Amino acid sequence: MISVVILGAGNVATHLFKAFEKAENIVVNQWYNRSLKTIKPYKNKIEIIDDLALLNDADVYIIAVSDDAIAELSEQLPFENKLVVHTSGGVGVYDIDKKHKRGVFYPLQTFSKDAEMDFKSVPICIETIDKKDYHILKALAISIGSPTKKVNSDQRRVLHLAAVFVNNFTNQLYRIGHEITESEGAEFDLLKPLILETAKKVQELSPYMAQTGPAKRHDKKTIKKHLKILKNEQHKDIYKLLTKSIQNTHGTSTGSATNFEKNTHNGRKKL
Amino acid sequence: MISVVILGAGNVATHLFKAFEKAENIVVNQWYNRSLKTIKPYKNKIEIIDDLALLNDADVYIIAVSDDAIAELSEQLPFENKLVVHTSGGVGVYDIDKKHKRGVFYPLQTFSKDAEMDFKSVPICIETIDKKDYHILKALAISIGSPTKKVNSDQRRVLHLAAVFVNNFTNQLYRIGHEITESEGAEFDLLKPLILETAKKVQELSPYMAQTGPAKRHDKKTIKKHLKILKNEQHKDIYKLLTKSIQNTHGTSTGSATNFEKNTHNGRKKL
Ligand SMILES: NC(=O)c1ccc[n+]([C@@H]2O[C@H](COP(=O)([O-])OP(=O)(O)OC[C@H]3O[C@@H](n4cnc5c(N)ncnc54)[C@H](OP(=O)(O)O)[C@@H]3O)[C@@H](O)[C@H]2O)c1
Ligand SMILES: NC(=O)c1ccc[n+]([C@@H]2O[C@H](COP(=O)([O-])OP(=O)(O)OC[C@H]3O[C@@H](n4cnc5c(N)ncnc54)[C@H](OP(=O)(O)O)[C@@H]3O)[C@@H](O)[C@H]2O)c1
Repeated sequence: MISVVILGAGNVATHLFKAFEKAENIVVNQWYNRSLKTIKPYKNKIEIIDDLALLNDADVYIIAVSDDAIAELSEQLPFENKLVVHTSGGVGVYDIDKKHKRGVFYPLQTFSKDAEMDFKSVPICIETIDKKDYHILKALAISIGSPTKKVNSDQRRVLHLAAVFVNNFTNQLYRIGHEITESEGAEFDLLKPLILETAKKVQELSPYMAQTGPAKRHDKKTIKKHLKILKNEQHKDIYKLLTKSIQNTHGTSTGSATNFEKNTHNGRKKL
Repeated sequence: MISVVILGAGNVATHLFKAFEKAENIVVNQWYNRSLKTIKPYKNKIEIIDDLALLNDADVYIIAVSDDAIAELSEQLPFENKLVVHTSGGVGVYDIDKKHKRGVFYPLQTFSKDAEMDFKSVPICIETIDKKDYHILKALAISIGSPTKKVNSDQRRVLHLAAVFVNNFTNQLYRIGHEITESEGAEFDLLKPLILETAKKVQELSPYMAQTGPAKRHDKKTIKKHLKILKNEQHKDIYKLLTKSIQNTHGTSTGSATNFEKNTHNGRKKL
């Protein structure tokens, strides 16, 4: 049995609580938030507290609060030498107060409070300062069905950065697709199956192998037509920059792939 | 029964042939390609030809060849006044020779030859010059299980352009995610569930509502950190431009959404 205390009551904390509750070998001892309001609905299932002085003993303390509040909250914890982890991709493990055993339990996924989340599709990136603390975090992740990966700080940092590209920036491209289609009274809904298929394709194939379209084909006529249709200057800039980026990746028609491409363009190669 | 002749043997032609073959009320009379080699494997199922002079009568002739070859091929067809359509998002309906009844049967999806494709997730955008020709194309699409949409030329043009954003450009963002993670020996595979979830989210929620992250939050500290990690100048430019684009869409922290945002940010509104 692994005993856990959750601190914070946002998206991540709430999803973790629900997953831990279902897991057989995890017990959540207490749930802390600075204000009780958000966690009141759970008061029959779990001891809820808003006073750090009431914290009891547990194997792991999970700080799932806003990035900026992690350091301070860890400092305020009224004990030492216990395992305290945060759940952030962008905050250092050393930002946790040094009186604790320290680690990171970073779920590489996008959470919304109301949407259900199956932790099978939430890879947990684990980092600990002391090797010995790794195994309990791994066991915790496995108990909720998550794939796990041991990462160092540099790796976690680039994963968090890459997540911005494939999540936030991709979502903004969807948004631009929305604006463009609606501008002519066409339906964004028509693009939804394509959006899904594009994401599914790279589950099997590398993005390098999956690429198609006018940029890759150096189809100047179509590119020119598209730039003429775009009225928003920023959309034009994005079109040009991403077209150039695709052409850099795939080389000219005469072929000039960089080493990275040569090494990674194999379709189903496990990376 | 609708009788069809397919011209061309690439990705689209092949997927259409397979779907038509399964449909109850469609019969494919002949399959033409300039070279027989690609369609040889189908010769027991269907009459294959490489000579336009051998073409027989049919209700619809579907030209699914490279964009640049559509006009010429339509001109070479040895008959007139029959319904001839192409399958391109980027080619005008008037590019088909005017001796024919003309239309477009544009599948808004990304096809690869070896991957299976369920036409339920292939919206067919239909355009015809003569209203009377619309219904047979709609019946054709319905027979293979596709959702259909009547579009005009301007709408088809912007759908094709938007498809470049949500398919080719999005895929390039995946590619950049791949490069960034591998540069630190982190695994791109860890990002795959996030990629899928990002695409799934906008099936229900508008991209406006689905947005999160440092750009939207105007989290200057994280943005600065990320720009410092990025070594590739082009990746930096893409990061900056898409961050600015997100901030334009979502306004400053004091809030300044444009009319488009006000009208379209409702979560589940059917667009
Ligand atoms: N959301 C995601 O998709 C996601 C994914 C991976 C990792 N993460 C990481 O997980 C952590 C939590 O993110 P989230 O999205 O769950 O956040 P969130 O939904 O915005 O919730 C933030 C939580 O932090 C608490 N909080 C904020 N400032 C505080 C302070 N000064 N002192 C004490 N508590 C404070 C809030 O308390 P109140 O309820 O009282 O306001 C709330 O419970 C962050 O480190 C984030 O980087 C998030
Ligand atoms: N692929 C997609 O995801 C997709 C999606 C929606 C719409 N479309 C549209 O569908 C059409 C076909 O695309 P595709 O991807 O199926 O193409 P593709 O796989 O590249 O195949 C092209 C086909 O066109 C033939 N062809 C090329 N030049 C020709 C010429 N000068 N004369 C006669 N035939 C010629 C080729 O014949 P050989 O076999 O002899 O080379 C081949 O059968 C295009 O208009 C495209 O814009 C494609």
